[in-house]
Amino acid sequence: MTDRLVISIDAMGGDNAPETVIAGVKLAHEKYPDVFFLLYGDEARIEALAEQNGLDKQAYRVYHTTQVIKADEKPSAAVRYGRESSMWKAIYAVRTGEASAVVSAGNTGALMAMSKICLGTMAGVDRPAIAAIMPTSVQGQDVVALDLGANAECNATNLVEFAIMGSVFYRIVYGLQKPSVGLLNIGSEESKGREEIKEAANILKANAEKINYYGFVEGFDIGAGTTHVVVSDGFSGNVALKAIEGTAKMIKRIFGQQMKKSLLAYLGMIFLFPTLLRLKKRVDPRRYNGAMFLGLNGISVKSHGGADELGYFHAVETAINLVQNDFCEKIRVELEEVIFSSEDSFEY
Amino acid sequence: MTDRLVISIDAMGGDNAPETVIAGVKLAHEKYPDVFFLLYGDEARIEALAEQNGLDKQAYRVYHTTQVIKADEKPSAAVRYGRESSMWKAIYAVRTGEASAVVSAGNTGALMAMSKICLGTMAGVDRPAIAAIMPTSVQGQDVVALDLGANAECNATNLVEFAIMGSVFYRIVYGLQKPSVGLLNIGSEESKGREEIKEAANILKANAEKINYYGFVEGFDIGAGTTHVVVSDGFSGNVALKAIEGTAKMIKRIFGQQMKKSLLAYLGMIFLFPTLLRLKKRVDPRRYNGAMFLGLNGISVKSHGGADELGYFHAVETAINLVQNDFCEKIRVELEEVIFSSEDSFEY
Repeated sequence: MTDRLVISIDAMGGDNAPETVIAGVKLAHEKYPDVFFLLYGDEARIEALAEQNGLDKQAYRVYHTTQVIKADEKPSAAVRYGRESSMWKAIYAVRTGEASAVVSAGNTGALMAMSKICLGTMAGVDRPAIAAIMPTSVQGQDVVALDLGANAECNATNLVEFAIMGSVFYRIVYGLQKPSVGLLNIGSEESKGREEIKEAANILKANAEKINYYGFVEGFDIGAGTTHVVVSDGFSGNVALKAIEGTAKMIKRIFGQQMKKSLLAYLGMIFLFPTLLRLKKRVDPRRYNGAMFLGLNGISVKSHGGADELGYFHAVETAINLVQNDFCEKIRVELEEVIFSSEDSFEY
Repeated sequence: MTDRLVISIDAMGGDNAPETVIAGVKLAHEKYPDVFFLLYGDEARIEALAEQNGLDKQAYRVYHTTQVIKADEKPSAAVRYGRESSMWKAIYAVRTGEASAVVSAGNTGALMAMSKICLGTMAGVDRPAIAAIMPTSVQGQDVVALDLGANAECNATNLVEFAIMGSVFYRIVYGLQKPSVGLLNIGSEESKGREEIKEAANILKANAEKINYYGFVEGFDIGAGTTHVVVSDGFSGNVALKAIEGTAKMIKRIFGQQMKKSLLAYLGMIFLFPTLLRLKKRVDPRRYNGAMFLGLNGISVKSHGGADELGYFHAVETAINLVQNDFCEKIRVELEEVIFSSEDSFEY
């Protein structure tokens, strides 16, 4: 069809779809003019929005779909009855090789379930996980956290797999040979927490040559950058992720409220503006938008449902970067090495 | 003994005990000169620190203890073998009526287990919970979150009890007749989350005249003040609490790093100083230090293990306020009304 890198887009997924989606794609096109987009959704609306946004006609093709996966749709139902949806069709384009990655801001559970069925799970992986990159207070160091919501309940084996995948992911993205991995718990002492976490800790400790296991970490260790990778079940991880985002927003809002009480403060803001801008840039959740499904045979990126166009752009950028870095093949090779290398296999 | 309000203190519990503890007690004495403190721990060290801090000899009595509950001690072991510890003795003073409340910055699990055994659980409560007050971005509105770590795993009945206790607690502290209660989940849709949460939601919905159930809330809703009370199992609650604290610290640290890059910013800070001070005061974790064990026949307050003297002071202040407001009796009466009122009992 074309030699260009192709990204398929679920144009109907997300709180303000397709408006935000198309505006985000336009931003992505500006930065990556060579990327071609397959847009799945309501053709008339998408074409109108593409024109409104001034999106180059050579940069996309629309595939008309009529079905939309709702935010409250059960994943199992979505998989069974959603085969005509924009989400399924967009994922399917990755399966057929028409696209190299899919991006959706729709129902996370449905996207996970559909991606899993449509793309398949990598050999050696029992449960894929959602991973995201977050800022830390250590300069130049981000943290990769997983699982962030794919698996509400996990056993020890799942947690160990997440640790391996997170570690490999960090190595690929940041080039760090042995990233440290922490298990999220409610205390750093060995006696604390749920049984499956203690069991996972024992397995990771027994495989020290293969994985740089740090120990238990707590909620505050994520932002402190105590470890490069933080592993948790999908429930706690999701709660932590959203609590972190919520706190940043809360502080911003309270700061704004206090500002209003002081004219002097406005004067101060003029001087502080470049500093606050840098701060904002470093922790801007939009910059960190784009969660990845690790453990699938294909790249599927989830944007926040409520992301604005800049946030959506970053999710698309994440997908492009993963494709350009041949992420799937690298993680497959690395996983094989860690889990299946014959002399010294991973001991459960 | 004395007519004064008496607080018993586990002087040996906490990361920097007894130093921080005694310094915190000194601050509490300055604000509440009529309160009398029973200090449990190493007599020689406590007396030396009391003198160093200039703590009035009329404000305290030291009870010498030699055993200290370690941070990594298992709660079950602490309860069995820890009866000579500063923690146990301090709690025991509440049981005998010598003190009206106990404060400890030591091992949370041990403090919970000991408080439960020593003080007993209120009628109608199966599992006591740790609750704390946190700031929100809604002006003048705090949020009460529970459980924050007492119960790593919870069933639907536990969650419902937490909802009732949190609601009653909020009413007592803030005088709000029908505080709204949210269940912490990984999505607001009804199909999301773990089974026990969905079950708890159904029970709460069926008791709408007794409790103002809002629905599912997510991590960001805590700081947004979406509901007055947020209920979760102790694992997710603990992760959320620490993630929130960690994020505030991270932003502060990154702000400091960015400040160093700009001389102008320092100039701006002079004007902004009062505003930042107000912001800090509103979200200062030390101000919100002092978690309560809800559901016991007695007041037991947990300070952060790493709290400084000001943080410890606030934990002591929380204990004093709860005593002055006759908290235990009020919550007992309220719980009885909600759970046991004959015509219209709480339906499980």
